[in-house]
Amino acid sequence: MNQSNQEDFQKRIKIRFHDQKLLTTALTHSSYANERKLPRGKDNERLEFLGDAVLELIMSDYLFKTYRDEPEGKLTKMRASLVCEPTLAFCAKDIALGDYLLLSKGEDLTGGRERNSILSDAFEAVIGAVYLDQGFEEARKFVETYLLQDVDEKVLFYDAKTSLQELVQSISKESLSYILTKEEGPDHQKTFTVEAKLGGKVIGTGAGRSKKSAEQMAAYEAMKHKDRILR
Amino acid sequence: MNQSNQEDFQKRIKIRFHDQKLLTTALTHSSYANERKLPRGKDNERLEFLGDAVLELIMSDYLFKTYRDEPEGKLTKMRASLVCEPTLAFCAKDIALGDYLLLSKGEDLTGGRERNSILSDAFEAVIGAVYLDQGFEEARKFVETYLLQDVDEKVLFYDAKTSLQELVQSISKESLSYILTKEEGPDHQKTFTVEAKLGGKVIGTGAGRSKKSAEQMAAYEAMKHKDRILR
Repeated sequence: MNQSNQEDFQKRIKIRFHDQKLLTTALTHSSYANERKLPRGKDNERLEFLGDAVLELIMSDYLFKTYRDEPEGKLTKMRASLVCEPTLAFCAKDIALGDYLLLSKGEDLTGGRERNSILSDAFEAVIGAVYLDQGFEEARKFVETYLLQDVDEKVLFYDAKTSLQELVQSISKESLSYILTKEEGPDHQKTFTVEAKLGGKVIGTGAGRSKKSAEQMAAYEAMKHKDRILR
Repeated sequence: MNQSNQEDFQKRIKIRFHDQKLLTTALTHSSYANERKLPRGKDNERLEFLGDAVLELIMSDYLFKTYRDEPEGKLTKMRASLVCEPTLAFCAKDIALGDYLLLSKGEDLTGGRERNSILSDAFEAVIGAVYLDQGFEEARKFVETYLLQDVDEKVLFYDAKTSLQELVQSISKESLSYILTKEEGPDHQKTFTVEAKLGGKVIGTGAGRSKKSAEQMAAYEAMKHKDRILR
């Protein structure tokens, strides 16, 4: 990645870092630091440690104030469904974070830019960097914009298979199934395509790096087109 | 507890709450809310949820900035040893938090004011209340004053048995043992007294509600009087 890419990223997220090196660190995956033999602390793992705590507080504060009548146990569960790898990776994809990461050649060639674990960690590292460079309130704005906006949709996405199952049970006697229709690419870089079917009818299609994530995408698509289920 | 006690507590921690009810909630254990049939949300569990996240960020930020060369894994371990029940209960005892808690009669009679789990939770709830009432920076000051001051000593306390074992191994050939010397009180409210012995010599004495915490106290006392070990 070159400097102009980092410029692009800042335009995209509408934040101008005082300390450009801090952003570079947030975008540096450990595989890249290892490959280049960079000194210790030049990858994004420490920033991820910090960003995770920043995110935890922002979400806890949001849930505490939004759900005033919910007990602690419910808040903890909601927080866990928002601050989890699939949801954070989903948010990272929203800002095309994968395109700006510094990865080793190996990680790059094996689809690292789309790997949920890498994206989720980098998303937290960016939150940590925003917090250090711009302060807590700017970090909060960042999280509000890129995680809490359409939060219902994000929770829906995370829980799409459960939600679809519940919907189908309440309105239809036919049973829901997921059918693998395609498996492409070499072993280390497979893409799976799955159809969600109600009775004989396709109500959603999804693709992903694993069968599970393809099913999730198919269920999510079905939930967005409920008319296909109802008709 | 009456209002004057809440006044005392604020003088002790040098914080004047704008919203006195918020502090009352932080000091209310669920057993008291149940006994009095208070409406949902009037005990300190939700504030504990929030305070836990506030504390996590303050500690992460502190460790991130203090240990600039330590990898993420080490920071995570250090955070876990600081944000844990025994350490937080130790800090709660420093401000006599137990004296100000609203407990059910049952909890009060069975030593609830000295129970680590209750104290640790209430300490987090107070942090949550300070954050809501006074803001993040005031919460940080509170944590710096009551947790991060003498942090080395607190880590030492938490880890006293390990530290003592290491010290003894490095300077002595005699072996370390913990001897239970007293067991007092009724079953639900026992106090254990333990001596830490090196060879035949007592190098520390400690008391606690469990054998384990009594051993910890004995080890801590021995570490504070290293001359007894060296002589």
